Amino acid sequence: MSPARGRLAELSAPVHDGLAEMRACQLEQLTEDSAAVGDMTDHISRFRGKQLRGTLVMLVGRAHGAYTSEHPTVAAVVEMIHLATLVHDDVLDGATVRRRVACVNERWDNQVAVLLGDFLYARAFSLSTTLSSRLCSRLLSDTTRKLCVGEIEQAARRYDFEMTQEGYERIAGAKTASLYSAACELGARYPGGNEELGASMGAFGWEIGLAFQIIDDCLDVCGDQAVVGKNVGNDVDDGKVTLPVLRTYAAADHQERAAIRDAYTLPDLPDRLGRLREVADLEPGVEYALARAGDLVRGALRRLEPLAEGPAKRSLEQLGEFILERKW
Amino acid sequence: MSPARGRLAELSAPVHDGLAEMRACQLEQLTEDSAAVGDMTDHISRFRGKQLRGTLVMLVGRAHGAYTSEHPTVAAVVEMIHLATLVHDDVLDGATVRRRVACVNERWDNQVAVLLGDFLYARAFSLSTTLSSRLCSRLLSDTTRKLCVGEIEQAARRYDFEMTQEGYERIAGAKTASLYSAACELGARYPGGNEELGASMGAFGWEIGLAFQIIDDCLDVCGDQAVVGKNVGNDVDDGKVTLPVLRTYAAADHQERAAIRDAYTLPDLPDRLGRLREVADLEPGVEYALARAGDLVRGALRRLEPLAEGPAKRSLEQLGEFILERKW
Repeated sequence: MSPARGRLAELSAPVHDGLAEMRACQLEQLTEDSAAVGDMTDHISRFRGKQLRGTLVMLVGRAHGAYTSEHPTVAAVVEMIHLATLVHDDVLDGATVRRRVACVNERWDNQVAVLLGDFLYARAFSLSTTLSSRLCSRLLSDTTRKLCVGEIEQAARRYDFEMTQEGYERIAGAKTASLYSAACELGARYPGGNEELGASMGAFGWEIGLAFQIIDDCLDVCGDQAVVGKNVGNDVDDGKVTLPVLRTYAAADHQERAAIRDAYTLPDLPDRLGRLREVADLEPGVEYALARAGDLVRGALRRLEPLAEGPAKRSLEQLGEFILERKW
Repeated sequence: MSPARGRLAELSAPVHDGLAEMRACQLEQLTEDSAAVGDMTDHISRFRGKQLRGTLVMLVGRAHGAYTSEHPTVAAVVEMIHLATLVHDDVLDGATVRRRVACVNERWDNQVAVLLGDFLYARAFSLSTTLSSRLCSRLLSDTTRKLCVGEIEQAARRYDFEMTQEGYERIAGAKTASLYSAACELGARYPGGNEELGASMGAFGWEIGLAFQIIDDCLDVCGDQAVVGKNVGNDVDDGKVTLPVLRTYAAADHQERAAIRDAYTLPDLPDRLGRLREVADLEPGVEYALARAGDLVRGALRRLEPLAEGPAKRSLEQLGEFILERKW
C-alpha cells in the first residue's frame, strides 16, 4: 500500500465497519442477471478509488452523533453516483487509463460506457428509494442535476482564457464540490431535519470538494502520470483552462499569452502539456492555486470547531490535510 | 398535421388537459439558470415526439377512475426518462436525423449529448421525488435500470443471427416495453396500492410496447425515411439483428445466409440496407413480425375488457390499432 493509501485507511478507521458495509451494498447493487452487464460491472469494481465521498457521509454522521444503520447505504448511493460520473467522464475525456486499470471506454466501446454509466445512475437512484427517508433521493437527484450543469458549462467554456476565478470556481464547484457537499449534508442530517446543521456541513463539504478539484487541476498540469495513476495533461488536450493556467495567463504578457493559447489550440501538437510547460512558467499559477486550496480547507476546518473532540472529528481534520498533500 | 398525427391527437382527447399540464411541467423542468444548458434544452424541446408513454399514464388513470392531479407530473417524469434515452441512443447510434430535427450529437458533440442525457435523467428523478408518493421514483428508477440492461444486452448480441425469438423479445422488452409497462402500471395504481390492477395494466403496457418495438424494427428495414422521419437502415448499420431479419435468416438456405451476414459485416459497404434487400426477400419475415405484433396488441386489448365503457377505454383500444398501423 502506498503511504497515501495507508494514511487514507488510517483516517477512515472510525468508519471501518461502515465502509465494509458500503462496499458490500455496492457489490450487491452491481450484480445483475445479465452476462453482458456482469462482465462490465466485474471490471469496474476493480477500480475502487479513494471512496472519499462515502467516507465523508459516515465520518460526518459519526462526528455529529447522527450515524444511523442506513448511513452505509447512503454512502453507497453517493459512491455509485460518483462512479457513474467517472464512467461518463471517461467517454467525455477519451481517457484510456484510470487508476491503472483500462477505462470502460477503452475495453468496450463508448456506446457501452454510456449505457454502463446510465445503469449505475439508475441503480443508485433505485437504491436510494429503498431507504426509510426520501432525503437521500431528493438531495442526490438534485445534486446530480448540478453535476451535469457544471460539466455542460465547463464544455461550453473550453478555451476561455478570460474566465474569472469566480467563473472557474462556480463550474468546479458544480461539477465536483456539489457531491462532496451533499455527502456531508446527508451525513449530518439523514434521515431528515437539522437543516442548519446540514447547511453548515454542506458548506464544509463544498469547501473541501472545491479544494480537491483545484488540487486535481494542479496535478493535471504538474503531476507525474506514474504517481497520479491517471493520464496527466488531459485538461490541456480537452481545452479546459483551469485555475493554475488562468493565473499564469492573466500574469503573462501579450507574446506569452499567444504561446499559451497556441499550446492549447495548434492542430496536431503531439504533447500539448509539454509545449505549455515550455512556453510558460506554470509555477506561480500552481502556487497560487494551491494557496487557494489551502484557504478553502482552513475555512472548512473552522466549521468543525463546535464539534466534540473524538476520532471522527480528528479524521475529518486530517482529511483536509490529506487533500492538500495528495499526489494522486 | 399528418393523418397519423391527427389520429393520435384524437385518441388522446380524453387527456387533452393533462397533456398540456404535462408539457408545461416538462418545460419548467428544462429551464436552467445556465445559458449553455438553456441553449440545448431549447433545441430538444423542439422534437416533441408522439408522447405515447405520457398519454398512457393518463389514459390508464382515467380508464380506471384512478386519475389524480399528480398524473400529469408522473407522465412528465416518464416522458423525460424517454427523452434521456433518446438523447443517449443518438450517441449510441450515431444518428443524425431524429424527427426531422438535427440530433443533439450532430448539433453539439457527443460529449455534450451524454451530459444532456444525464441532466434529463437527473431532472426526471428529481421531479419524481417531489410527488406525494414514492411509487413513481421506485418504479421508474428500477425501470431505467431495466432499460439500460436491455440496451447493454442488445449491444452484446450484435451480429447474432442465431438469436431466438425469445431472446430478441427479452431484449426488446427490456429496452422498450418496460417503460410502456411502467407508464401503464403507474397510471393504474399511482399513488399506491392496487398491485393486482397494476400488474394487469403493466402487462397491457408491456404487450403494446413490445408490439411498438417490433413495428419500429420493421420500419427500419422496410420504411421510407421521408415518411418515418428518422434514418432507416440504422439497425443493419449497427449490427442489430431484429425479428424480421431473424425470421428471414432462419428460413434462408446456406448461401442466402452468407449473403445476409455479408450485408451486415463486409467492410465499407455504403448501403447495407440496400444490399440486404437485394440479397434477401424480407417480406415473409416482415409479415411474420407484423403478425406477432398484431397478436401482442390483441392480447393487450383483452386486458381492457373488464373496464367500464367510456372515452378513455375507447382511446386505449384505438391506441392498439394506431400502433399496428403506424408508418412513422
